[in-house]
Amino acid sequence: MNAAEIHDKAIVIDGLICAKWNRELFEDMSKGKLTAANCTVSFWENFEGTVRNVVEMNQLIDANSDLLLKVYTTKDIYRAKAEGKTGVMMGFQNAHAFEDQIGYVQIFKDLGVGIVQMCYNTQNLVGTGCYERDGGLSGYGREIVAEMNRVGMLCDLSHVGPNTAKEVIIESKKPVAYSHCLPSGLKEHPRNRSDEELKFIADNGGFVGVTMFAPFLKAGINATIDDYVEAIQYIYNIVGEDAIGIGTDFTQGHGYDFFEYLTHDKGYARRLTRFGEIINPLGMRTVGDFPNLTEALLKHGFSERQVCKIMGDNWVNLLREVWGE
Amino acid sequence: MNAAEIHDKAIVIDGLICAKWNRELFEDMSKGKLTAANCTVSFWENFEGTVRNVVEMNQLIDANSDLLLKVYTTKDIYRAKAEGKTGVMMGFQNAHAFEDQIGYVQIFKDLGVGIVQMCYNTQNLVGTGCYERDGGLSGYGREIVAEMNRVGMLCDLSHVGPNTAKEVIIESKKPVAYSHCLPSGLKEHPRNRSDEELKFIADNGGFVGVTMFAPFLKAGINATIDDYVEAIQYIYNIVGEDAIGIGTDFTQGHGYDFFEYLTHDKGYARRLTRFGEIINPLGMRTVGDFPNLTEALLKHGFSERQVCKIMGDNWVNLLREVWGE
Repeated sequence: MNAAEIHDKAIVIDGLICAKWNRELFEDMSKGKLTAANCTVSFWENFEGTVRNVVEMNQLIDANSDLLLKVYTTKDIYRAKAEGKTGVMMGFQNAHAFEDQIGYVQIFKDLGVGIVQMCYNTQNLVGTGCYERDGGLSGYGREIVAEMNRVGMLCDLSHVGPNTAKEVIIESKKPVAYSHCLPSGLKEHPRNRSDEELKFIADNGGFVGVTMFAPFLKAGINATIDDYVEAIQYIYNIVGEDAIGIGTDFTQGHGYDFFEYLTHDKGYARRLTRFGEIINPLGMRTVGDFPNLTEALLKHGFSERQVCKIMGDNWVNLLREVWGE
Repeated sequence: MNAAEIHDKAIVIDGLICAKWNRELFEDMSKGKLTAANCTVSFWENFEGTVRNVVEMNQLIDANSDLLLKVYTTKDIYRAKAEGKTGVMMGFQNAHAFEDQIGYVQIFKDLGVGIVQMCYNTQNLVGTGCYERDGGLSGYGREIVAEMNRVGMLCDLSHVGPNTAKEVIIESKKPVAYSHCLPSGLKEHPRNRSDEELKFIADNGGFVGVTMFAPFLKAGINATIDDYVEAIQYIYNIVGEDAIGIGTDFTQGHGYDFFEYLTHDKGYARRLTRFGEIINPLGMRTVGDFPNLTEALLKHGFSERQVCKIMGDNWVNLLREVWGE
């Protein structure tokens, strides 16, 4: 089989997309033959704001049901593959939406939210994000981890501070993930993870999705798909072939206001970071370029079996283990 | 003048009451000749729940306007004294009610909330309370302190963790307070403060209100008003005669459910502590016993001038400095 045929056959999972949700994007997902994606429906929003985002996403899935279906279980991922659609896995980048109610974990699980990042960049009730001093997982955070374990919701640690992340890895009875991260071995950045951190999550049964967000890549906005493959290879060497996947962090369709929202605490308060210009690696400019990644991984020397694991099989296995079906 | 006459003349401030708000209590305040009290209207409640508590308190003040008036400024405290009423200063024991909105500080200031404790027992968006590991003041917390400084709202640190408390003392441009605390020099307890902590807040222009809550007193439920005076003397020796006041923590009228609410994170989650039986010191069983405290302080050897400072003048000076009038 050639690269295109392998891509056609593969389960292709993107572990993190926060693009502008619209028909154009969904068509690009279809072009990229994306089987399913973790689609962010909460950054800084509280419970009510997040429920509204879920409503909006439900309506979009409904209005674009020729291209999309909603994922509650891993069976829905296989169904998406069989029907040639893209499965929407709703996810949060911030446990803030749970507010002070442990019971909201079950509420959101029932609404179809299967992946929740514990903190987004700063402190919340659960722990602290990666852009400020991190005092670790709170007592309430431990209760939230236990409840996420119970209902079957993946703990995502990508934007979480190093102390909180480590304690979630230890606390969780189910595998946890960095859904979208890069190695600090290639570039030092508060968002990137050290070799020790990558090894620690893998040693504890966890998972690493590799991102290609320009500000965290060694080559920045000059990166090509080969730089992305280099980062994948780097993490692969540490975590092994079963604990690695893709989490692009595609933000296509968004403009200035969106990035201002992301880079300020609570969406409006103090500035946390500046991304500068964001250009995705050449060859992976949009979701529609996903087949290029399969090709680049094969060209780099990964076997067909390894490529299928990286492109999606490992993600599905992880989610089955956490979600329970 | 005898003790009763001195008490009649004095400005008497209680820096912390969280009793059951009802006519019986307000009559007892009147009997105790309380000029004003910091009355808690938020523990674990969010913004909306807290606004409802404010509404309820407004209605109670209105319905009992023969006994009460609402305090916005220190002038209102003098007016309460002149009219023989008790001034209600609304206060929070948790900055949780601000949620993620810095602008809610001004909203609550406008509603009459003049004193806000940064954290209640556990971690919130601002910092961490005294019943769990404390990672210190968050970046958002620094913004909240600055906004409280700007609008004129006292930062209360009584239930705040030691690291967060220290950083608020350093961060705040206006004096801050432990509104109701006891010295760990007399009894070790997570809620009590070391000599170093008491000295640190005083050295930084801050203030200490002394509580008599049985679980934190050396003699516990067997304490008498003389044990309370001993604690006042202990703190007086460290912070001096201008930085000390009263903050009883009267909870009269409340039952089992209220203490269960207080001693669980968020009001319902994991248990943080057990108070056991709560009996106020003999001689200070209820708010109506306040004249006994003036008498006991005089008997102990404090001068009339010192007693007046402790009983309320220092509180008024602190609030004038923070509130700006």
